[in-house]
Formats: sequence, structure tokens, C-alpha cells
Amino acid sequence: MSTTSAPTAGTAVGHRVIGTSVRRHEDDRLLRGLGRFADDVDRIGQAHARVVRSGSAHAEILGVDTAQARSVPGVLTVITGAELAGIPPIPIRLPRGDEPAESLQPVLAVDRVRYVGEPVAVVVAEDPYTAEDAAELVVVDLRELPAAVEAAGTKPVATLEAGYGDVAGAFAAAEHVVELELEVGRHAAVPLETRGLVAEYDVAARTLQVWGATKVPVFNRGVLARMLGMPQERIRLHAMDTGGGFGARGEFYPEDLLIPWLARHLRRPVKWTEDRAESLVALNHSRQQRHRVAAAFDADARLLALRDEIVHDNGAYLRTHGLLVPELTIGMLPGPYRVPAYHAAVDVVLTNKTPCGTYRAPGRYEGTFAREHLLDVAADRIGIDRAELRRRNLLRADEMPHVRPLRALGTDVVLDAGDYPGLLRTALERTLPWRAEAERLRAEGRTAGFGFAMFLEKSGLGPHETADVLVEPSGLVRVHSGGTSLGQGIETALAQIAADRLGVDYTSVRVVNGDTELQPFGLGSWASRSTVLAGNAVDLAAQAVVERARQVAALMLDVPRAWVEQDGAGFAADGRRVELAEVAAACAPGSRYLEAGVAPGLQARRVFEVDHMTYPYGVHVALVEIDRGTGHVSVLRYLVAYEVGRAINPALVEGQLLGGVAQGLGGAVYENFHYDEQGQPQATTFMDYLLPTAAEVPGVVEALVTEDAPSPDNPLGVKGAGEGGITAVGAAVANAVRDAIGLSGDVGHLPLAPRRVAELAN
Amino acid sequence: MSTTSAPTAGTAVGHRVIGTSVRRHEDDRLLRGLGRFADDVDRIGQAHARVVRSGSAHAEILGVDTAQARSVPGVLTVITGAELAGIPPIPIRLPRGDEPAESLQPVLAVDRVRYVGEPVAVVVAEDPYTAEDAAELVVVDLRELPAAVEAAGTKPVATLEAGYGDVAGAFAAAEHVVELELEVGRHAAVPLETRGLVAEYDVAARTLQVWGATKVPVFNRGVLARMLGMPQERIRLHAMDTGGGFGARGEFYPEDLLIPWLARHLRRPVKWTEDRAESLVALNHSRQQRHRVAAAFDADARLLALRDEIVHDNGAYLRTHGLLVPELTIGMLPGPYRVPAYHAAVDVVLTNKTPCGTYRAPGRYEGTFAREHLLDVAADRIGIDRAELRRRNLLRADEMPHVRPLRALGTDVVLDAGDYPGLLRTALERTLPWRAEAERLRAEGRTAGFGFAMFLEKSGLGPHETADVLVEPSGLVRVHSGGTSLGQGIETALAQIAADRLGVDYTSVRVVNGDTELQPFGLGSWASRSTVLAGNAVDLAAQAVVERARQVAALMLDVPRAWVEQDGAGFAADGRRVELAEVAAACAPGSRYLEAGVAPGLQARRVFEVDHMTYPYGVHVALVEIDRGTGHVSVLRYLVAYEVGRAINPALVEGQLLGGVAQGLGGAVYENFHYDEQGQPQATTFMDYLLPTAAEVPGVVEALVTEDAPSPDNPLGVKGAGEGGITAVGAAVANAVRDAIGLSGDVGHLPLAPRRVAELAN
Repeated sequence: MSTTSAPTAGTAVGHRVIGTSVRRHEDDRLLRGLGRFADDVDRIGQAHARVVRSGSAHAEILGVDTAQARSVPGVLTVITGAELAGIPPIPIRLPRGDEPAESLQPVLAVDRVRYVGEPVAVVVAEDPYTAEDAAELVVVDLRELPAAVEAAGTKPVATLEAGYGDVAGAFAAAEHVVELELEVGRHAAVPLETRGLVAEYDVAARTLQVWGATKVPVFNRGVLARMLGMPQERIRLHAMDTGGGFGARGEFYPEDLLIPWLARHLRRPVKWTEDRAESLVALNHSRQQRHRVAAAFDADARLLALRDEIVHDNGAYLRTHGLLVPELTIGMLPGPYRVPAYHAAVDVVLTNKTPCGTYRAPGRYEGTFAREHLLDVAADRIGIDRAELRRRNLLRADEMPHVRPLRALGTDVVLDAGDYPGLLRTALERTLPWRAEAERLRAEGRTAGFGFAMFLEKSGLGPHETADVLVEPSGLVRVHSGGTSLGQGIETALAQIAADRLGVDYTSVRVVNGDTELQPFGLGSWASRSTVLAGNAVDLAAQAVVERARQVAALMLDVPRAWVEQDGAGFAADGRRVELAEVAAACAPGSRYLEAGVAPGLQARRVFEVDHMTYPYGVHVALVEIDRGTGHVSVLRYLVAYEVGRAINPALVEGQLLGGVAQGLGGAVYENFHYDEQGQPQATTFMDYLLPTAAEVPGVVEALVTEDAPSPDNPLGVKGAGEGGITAVGAAVANAVRDAIGLSGDVGHLPLAPRRVAELAN
Repeated sequence: MSTTSAPTAGTAVGHRVIGTSVRRHEDDRLLRGLGRFADDVDRIGQAHARVVRSGSAHAEILGVDTAQARSVPGVLTVITGAELAGIPPIPIRLPRGDEPAESLQPVLAVDRVRYVGEPVAVVVAEDPYTAEDAAELVVVDLRELPAAVEAAGTKPVATLEAGYGDVAGAFAAAEHVVELELEVGRHAAVPLETRGLVAEYDVAARTLQVWGATKVPVFNRGVLARMLGMPQERIRLHAMDTGGGFGARGEFYPEDLLIPWLARHLRRPVKWTEDRAESLVALNHSRQQRHRVAAAFDADARLLALRDEIVHDNGAYLRTHGLLVPELTIGMLPGPYRVPAYHAAVDVVLTNKTPCGTYRAPGRYEGTFAREHLLDVAADRIGIDRAELRRRNLLRADEMPHVRPLRALGTDVVLDAGDYPGLLRTALERTLPWRAEAERLRAEGRTAGFGFAMFLEKSGLGPHETADVLVEPSGLVRVHSGGTSLGQGIETALAQIAADRLGVDYTSVRVVNGDTELQPFGLGSWASRSTVLAGNAVDLAAQAVVERARQVAALMLDVPRAWVEQDGAGFAADGRRVELAEVAAACAPGSRYLEAGVAPGLQARRVFEVDHMTYPYGVHVALVEIDRGTGHVSVLRYLVAYEVGRAINPALVEGQLLGGVAQGLGGAVYENFHYDEQGQPQATTFMDYLLPTAAEVPGVVEALVTEDAPSPDNPLGVKGAGEGGITAVGAAVANAVRDAIGLSGDVGHLPLAPRRVAELAN
């Protein structure tokens, strides 16, 4: 996979590093093989944990016999649910308030197991091999119960509704009504690095350290503290480098309690590293939804109303995301269109499968597929060009900001800024040759198709984020951010933001993320919030540092403060100049420039607060070819056009987009967590769960990053870029496949696996 | 050893914990065996270092052959001085500016060795046994040079002078002149825990961590950074628990560069633990001085002038203390007396022995012995009671503050407050029965003596100290102090100070000392400065926290700020109340009480600054008995009367005093680093270097802590209490021995070892 818009290489000089594609700070260690992942952490005297997991999808636990496992030499302890009796189930991170408490997952199952892979016991031994062998000797006595595998027909645990306007009236009065039944398959983030944790309890200080947590370490620290009955200030979480986050990693899982609990219990460091087979049943699944989606149009093909009835298969429990994915699905479904009336209802169903959570672009990947596939079918049925149908219905720039009477992630949906039709036009103009190429291929007798999809993203979820900026007397700058580093390059982006404000080179800025001791307040990195929230917090803190520095510089230069100008990495007045490093030194205790009663050090902590999200948007365009014999879908060309408001580092944005496309192809064509009728997972290795490899990802993916509509809601004008690369892949590929085959109806469901495509094509 | 003034036991409740003898925070871990000393630190993959030391006192290095050592399996490297060619010698921590640079110690000797024990090379191996064995195989080819062992007759490296008034005129006009030649033997701190270091270099982050440094970690970090050529912000020093500091531990020694350098060089953690034989030649020695001290009196036995000519044997190099001990000796010699004219000169001589530095009460132990022994001899010669001579010459309370035209530790000597004659009277009244006991013993034919000595101490050296106080939403309080924990109980004292100001229980305050990451600004613990400097810094920071909390509490209670009263661990107004913990929670990001643009968190960092020192003072009284046959001196009873201004925790003060007495007895009677004529140390084990044990320390040591003269120079009114227990032990014991034997002259020199005492007595 290559990109046709090459990032600007090299190191930016001076004051305007925002907007340039400087090299990543992270690469300094990652490319030298010096990244430090959870499994790289070792503590003296550590023991090793192995989780005993249910082999049944649904069964009553009659007893857990640990005697044989305990008797293995080297086994230190075996813990079952009974020993954790006082510990509550794992709470929801973003609760609505209406989640049924009985649907929460216990740390270890007690009376009943509800999915294959559910933790039942944990074995700790001197080495991981002994732990794994002994775990095989834990005998879980089960009475099998019927397994609910299909969501359809199962009683929902919750039903969420959203909407506005007279939907029934609109449908009754419509000239055209189109209704489809569409499904998105069960797939998941599947980061290549499995999870891992190391926990160490300091008996003397009564403090606990945990390595490996990431995404939301400050929040997780609070959960862990409450579950362990410790003050949260005595727990320190260290986020590590990560081989992929994507929504799944870093949420609070049973192991996030188990491993620290064991370290405290045993008074020894305890390490746990998930293996692949575990990961595929333990880490959050996602996406599995069935939509009965319908649109009503007038005679001019203008949308009158949109309606969706959704069944959301959430697996066995409500995990930390609670009802977030179904809520986001219906909150974001109307996308970038002018939708006068809307109603959606989602039945959240629990099944005896791995519980679900968010996965990059949660709810939007699913909803965008439903809506954009519907629009293609509708255009054909109405007899109007697919792009023209969208143009008529997209919100125009002069309609911005557009307040939509919906809620997303607990905030009002206010579409802030943008030119949706303009970006669609640009994307389609740019890919005009692809249409010609499709025609050429068809003329050669090949089955090629052109498809596109428009999408709306959301980013920059508040309510706030905190950052500390410190200038050291050496001139080095430190940023302690509440964001976390999940591979997205946030260390570099935050360094660029601080560097611009402070006038220093970005390479002299060191960003520490996800250390709860250094930054006790952060809300973490998720929901494409980091550049918006953490970025603007860094900007505010750096501004405060500059203001303080200006004050001290005025004392040093013996001039009124108003005379002092920031000048690169220093301050000038009256023909003289002091460097920022000198100003930092002048803020140390004992300096004659440090005023009495003022805290020493050149540093500031600031909070950036925001009420609602900012909404980037984009277009995906795909050129595909289908092998009618095998049903295999090849994506020949792919374009992501994406409006981000302002790209701090365009190469990072493009990296996000290209990675998103690769990942989106998985759900569109390859990946599927299939279960048999007894609830036994059928994809428990990478032989069965098909991640797209370099061979499957198109050779050319174009990223067209635009900065035409800076967000008015934050000073940097940025919008999140973490998810736009994946959001419309399912939709665009499905539309291209439909186009290639020449279907009059819909593709039915994702993934468009060979057997399915062959059926559609023949 | 017991104390007759028992500390108040138990936990203080509520608001007035200052002044009560609450249990030590430190004991929670130390008494449970959970203290963490340098040798308790282990890092994964650590290698072990062994220093190759010179066996010659003075020799030219012709070559160092490391080939055989390198060939030992398990040896990772052998480093000699040649490999450290670019690294400067160890700098002086408290330079006067006139120290000769060529007298500084190199990290590893290159051309010449100058004392037995000087580091010549270092071996690193997979385990400490291999390292030690291989170190024996490093062949240092030496050409022996003559060793300077006696300071007398050796050319001084520096001569310091101090004084004022017409000394010659005073002596010429005097009615009585008394002159003595006195010597103090070479002895040292000898902490029971030897030194140790662990260093780890993070190749990815280019950061270095060092465990084991203490006393002045922030300063040492700066030295290490400069010597390694790294920004100091990339180095983190962690001070550990310590088994004794006393001035010697925590200074920057050759190993403090070597071990971190090796860790960076090898990219592996490196550990080093000093053994006892090393420690006795490697750790700073101290005290060795010869005084030719003289006093001139008028007919009323009033001091007209004091004069001292001193030879200070500093060993082979000027270490981090530079010329501090000789300077302090002459700056403090006049003590608590009215001395109209004074002159002292000290020749600092380098000899081929272990270099010297400070040891608890540096300069004062020596000077107090010289002065107070002189006064006893003078009283006898003049024919006046020894106490009466002092009464006539002690500064009176109405003469305070007394500005003495001298300098001590770079500050003006301003004796701040006190009633010197009053404390002497109290001490002598209290020990009247001891005089009677001495008479009784003599009547029985035993050789008993009563002696006392008055002394002046100094404490609270500035220029500043920094503290952070943070209140967590749980209500727990954290203090990040620049002081360091050397066993003196500083964690408890600082917790008491913070607790009183914040209205919380002191057990909820956690004090972290000596972590350069958490507190980058501290100047450390030495010179009896911590309670004064760090204590007042904590008090200021806690006050700032209270003021901020009051502001937020006013918002929470919706009343004007002036209405809000601090009320225990909370704030009250208008009949309502909020707890401090609630206020802390209200300072978090997202709180509606957190004003825009204000840093979140309830915390403050403050600096306490002070221009000159504060001067506590006291009296030591000893009752001794001498075995005329063996010459053994038994101390039967001992009193320390000490004015500390204000005792934060009286039990801690008494602990300091009693420990000081035990240590002082070592230098007075037992401890002596004797060298032979070739400069070979003769005391290299505890069989030869005689530390006082429980058998030698008197069964009863009384501590009379007074708080009659709070220091006017700091808000808490405290004076340091770390050294007053040792300052006058040599003087008081010498005076008591002289009294017992009935000498008309002086005892000549310390220690009063059996052979010497037997000579004097027979």
C-alpha cells in the first residue's frame, strides 16, 4: 500500500511546525526496536498468571476443582470466583444510567458461564509454562444450558430510540420508498499485539503499580481503586507502547482487576500476557448488527424521512461501553444529509458469544453501510444518478452549523462546519478516470465496479482534557498529557503543538502520555478525541507558559512586560534578548527573578473544555474487480477524501486514513467471528479469522486530506482523524461490488466473502 | 541507652500535632522489615560492578593490565582511567572559589595513586562474585613514591584565616594567657549500611535512573549530568532508605559517576554494593586536626582574645566539601562566648590517606573540644570555678542577636536568640547529684570525674528549599519535599507540619523525599537544615493550599471568601461545611467550581528562603570513671541540654541527641583511623576500627530539650537538632577525664584510648 500524496519529509525549523509532516518522535524508539510493550516489562520476582476460561457458551457452574492444579510444583495459587465474592462486576465507563446491572460482567464467573472464553479461574505459577499446564488441570464442572447464538428472536436487554419529525407521515406521503435488510458481520479490532499486564504491589508504601493499561489509564485507575478498595492515589498506571488499540485495547477487562489483585494478594509482581487464541475470544468483539433501513423520497428524490430498525448483538455482557455502540449507531445514522424526519430503534440483545464494545468508527461503520447502500439502491430505483441523489440531499455549507435534534455520546449533535457537496464533487472528479477504467475492464469481460460512499464522522469528545507543559532549564520541554499513545503518533502531534507555541524545535519536546502519576487528570485517547482535546489542552498550557515566561523575561530585561516580544525560542525587548532556557533557569528557587510567594519552575497545567463534538466528514471511493469463479473481491484502487479542519501532521493523518482503509476492508470482505449452533467460536486462529494482509490491501490508496473547514469549536481548528479511514469502507466496497455485479437489490450483508459474492454474481 | 524524658506516645488527634511525639511514618515500613535500601534494589538484567582500588598510598601508575580480568567468563568489561579521559574530576559542592583544581579527585586514577583505596579500575560481570574475583586479576603496575602520612611539615594546599579585633594587643595586655596543643584523631561517619548504587539507562528514552543516591539528589543529578554530558532532566535519582548518613553518605563519590556511566556504556543495569573494607577506606574520613589554641583573659577572667593555629589533615584530595570543614572550624570556634578579639588560621594539608569531608557537627566537634578544654585548663590556672569562668564570658540573652564578624558556610554569623547562661545553669543544677556521685566514687578510691562543655551549633542553612503539597480527592495529602530522608524522621516531621496547617491527621500525609522527578528543586538534607528549610517550605506550601481551598470552598458554599473559616479538615461558613477532600474533588477538571484558565488540582509549590543560619546551643555533661589499670574510660552518666527553638516531634529530637552522644563517644574514646608510615591503613575492619557498641554507651543518657528561644528567622521558630548530640562529646568527656585524673594540663589528644589514658593517669 502506498500513498500518492507523499508527506513532507524532514525536520521543520523554527516556528511553524504545525501542518508539516515531521518525523514521528515515536519512530526514534519503535524503528530501533526499542519500543516497550507490556510484554517487555519484567519485574524482579514476578510470577505468571494464566486465566482458566469457559469452554461452554452457556452452562451452570456446579463446581470448580482446583486441587490438582494447586498440587503442581511451582503453582502459587489458584483463584476462583468464590474468592472474589466481595468484588463488584466491571462497571460501565460511559453509562447512560439505564443499563441493567445484571448484564455486567463479573471478574470471574460464579454461578454461570455465558460465553466461550469467559474467565472462570486464574492460576499463578513461577513460570508461564507451569501456569498454563496447571490451568489445564482446573476442573470446571458444568451443566450445559441452551446457547443463544442468534440475536433474532432473543429478548432485548434494552431498546434505544432516537428521532424527530413525522416519519410515518413522510413515508405515507412519499413518492419513493426504499427499504432494505442489511447485516454487518461480527468482527473486531484484533490488534496484532495481544494484551498484557504486569502489576506490582509495594507492601511498604501500600502502593500498586500496573504496566500495560492504556487508552483511559486515569479512568481505569479509578475503577481499579474502587474494586480493590484502595485510594486511587496509591495506584499508578503506566501506559506502554501498543501494537494497536482501535477501541478494544485499554478498556477495563476482567484481567485488569485480576492481575493487580493477585499482585497484592501474593505480594509478588504478577505478569500476564494474552495469547492469540485467548485474545480472539476475550477482547471485545464488535459491529454485529441487522438493519431494516428505509428511506422516503419526494418526486425530486429529496429525502423526506429515514427509518431504521436495528438488532444489535452485544454478546454475553454489557462491558465498559455499555449501550454506547447502539446509541451511536442511531445518533449518527442520518450522516451528512438533510433528513427532515428520522426515527431509529435499536434492540440490544445479549447472546452467548464474546461481549462487544467499540471498534474504530463504532456505529458509523455499520450505519454508513446501511445508509449509503440504501442510497445506491434508491438512486437506481428512482432512476437518478447515485451522486446526484446525494448532492440533492447533502447539507450545504450555508446550512452550517446544523443542529440535529439527536444525541451522540451524550452530547447534542451540532454539525459544525463543512462543504459536504464540495468534497463529494472533488472526490468524484478525482476518480473520474477510475470510472473509465471500470468501463475498460468490463469491456474486457472482467467484472469491475465503481462505488463510493459519503460519511459523517464525529470527534473531539469532551468534556475536558488536561495537559502540563514544563520548560526545563536545559531548554528541553516536557508535556504530560492526559492523552494516551495508541500508535496514532500523538506524542509527535502534541510536541508540534507545544513547539509552535513555545517557539522551540519540536524535537526538544518530550511528551509523556498515560502516566497517572505525572498527569493524574487525563481522560485518555478514544473517540478521535486526542488531537482535539489533548492538543488544545497542550496549546493552552503552552500559552500559559509563554505568558509566565514573558513576565519573567521582562524582569530579566528590566523592561515593562508589554515591551517583551516572543521571538523564536526566546524573548526580545529593547534590542536585547533572553532565551527560553534562560528564562526557565530564572524561574528556579533562589533566582532573583522569582517573586516571593510564587511557585518556582516554568510550567503550567491547563484544562481544555468543550461542550460538544466536532464533525469531520469524507468520501470513500473504491474500484473493485470480482472473480466470478471464486467470488473473490479485489480492491484495485481506493480513495479517502477527508476534511480534518487542520492537520497538525499531514503524514500522521494520512497514516491514520490508510490504516483505517486496510482495517475496514477486513470487515467488508474478510473478517467474521462465526459461531456454531452451540455457541462454539469457529474463528480462533488467524487461519480462520482472516485479517487482510499486504496481498489483500490495494496497491494504491489515495488520501486526500482537506483543511477547508476548520472547527470553530476549538482554537486549533482541528477535527479528529482517527476513524475516517475506516468509516465508509464497508459502504463503498459494497456499493462497488453491487455496481460490478449489476445488482438491482442490495448485497445483503458484510463481509462480502467469496462464497457470498459468488452467489450474488452467479 | 535509655532516655529519662520519655516521648509522648500515640497518635495526635486533630489540629495540634506539631510538638507531639507521634509515631514515625518511617517505622511503618522499617519496623516491618520493609525498608528499601540501595542493596534491596534489583533491576532485570543487572550486571555487577567491583572497583579495583590502589593498594599503595602513593605511587606512579606505569600501566594497568586488564587482559587477564577481561578473559574471565562472565566479565562484561573492565574500565580504567584512560577510558574516562574526557570526564572531569569530581567538583566541589560548596566551593569558595579558591580551591586548587589540581587537588580534586579524578573518577579513576590515571597517572598516580594518592591513597590506599583510590579507585583505579572497575570490573563489571554477570554476578558480583565473578566481578570480585576478576578484579583481583587486574594488574596495576606501580612505581612507589614516598607517602606523606603526617600533616605536620607538609606544605598546605590552602590556608584560611578568620578573625577580628586586636588579638596581639589583647594577648600582650592580658593578665592570664593559656595556650594548649590539642589534636583530634581521624575518624568518620561509618554508617552501618555501606553505600550502594543501581543505575539503569533507557536506550529508547535516553534517560537514566539511579537508585541509592541521597542527601543531595538534585545537586548530584546536576553533577552527574555535566560529567556524563546529558541534560539533567533526563536523569532521575531515587533516594532510598539509609542506614545512616551523618554527612558522609550521599556526597558525590567516584562510584556515583562510575556506576551510571557503566549502565549507559553497557546498556544494562549495573549494581554496586560497597563492602565494609572498601567503605572504611573509600567513604570520607573526617576530624583530623591539630590545634594550637590560646586564650587571653583579664584579671576578672574575662576573655580578651582567642587565637588558634590549626593544621587540618584533609587526606589525598579535596572532595565535594572542599574547604568547608576547616572554614567551619574557624568560623564557629568562638562558640557562645563574648570574644572581643579573635584570630584563627588553618593550614589545609593533603596527605596520602583517604580524603576527608564532613562528619556530623563538622568543625564544631573539633573546635568545641579545643575551646572547652582550653577553658577548663584556664579556669584551673586562673583559680576560678570552671562554670563561673564560662558564666562571665557567655553572651547573655540581652546581647542577642549578636552579630559576629565571621562567616560560616558562606553566611554571616548572627547568633539569633537564646539564654546561654540560663541553659548552662539548668544543666549544672540538674547534674549536681553527679558531682556528689563523683565525690563518692573518689572516696571509694575510684577514679571518677565530672566534666561539661558548652557549645554553639548552627543549622538551617539556606539559601532555600522547595516543597509541593497536594491534596488528593480521597483526602490523602502528599508532600514532595526537597529534603531527604537519612533516618532522621523527616517524613514524620514534615507530615506533622503539613497536617497542622491543613487540619488533617498526620497519618494521612505521605511524604516523598529525594525523588528528582517529583521534586526537581530540593537542596537536600545536610547541615541540620531539613526541619528548618524543608519544614518551613512545607508550611508555606500547605498555607497556599489552604488559601486556594478556602477560595474553592467559598464557591461551593456560595458565600464570600471572607466568611469561610478553616475548621479541622474542612471549611465552614454560614452553618454549613465542606470537607477538604470535597474541596480537592471540586478542583478537578470538569468541576463547576474550577474557574476557567486556572490549573486543576488542589496543590501548591512554594519556596522557603533564608539569608543566614539559626544557631541552637547546648551543654553536655559527663560523669566518667577510669580504670587506672587498663586506662579504659567508662561514661557513667551523660546529659545533653539543647535549645531547639521548637521541637516538631520531641521524640525525634531526643533520638537525634542520644544517637549523637553514642557517635560522639566513638571519636572521644574509641575510633581512630591509624596509618603506618607507608600510608597503609591499620583500621580496615571493625576489629580494628572500634565503634562504640551498647556496652560502651552509658546506660543513662538524659536529653533536656528546651524550646525557650524560638528562632526569629523562620515562621515555625525551629532550629536544627541533627548535630547537637555529638558536638561537645569530645570536649565534655575530655574535661571529665581530666577532672578524674586531676591533670593540671590538658589531655593532649582524642581519642582517649586506653593506652593514652593509662599514660595520663599513671
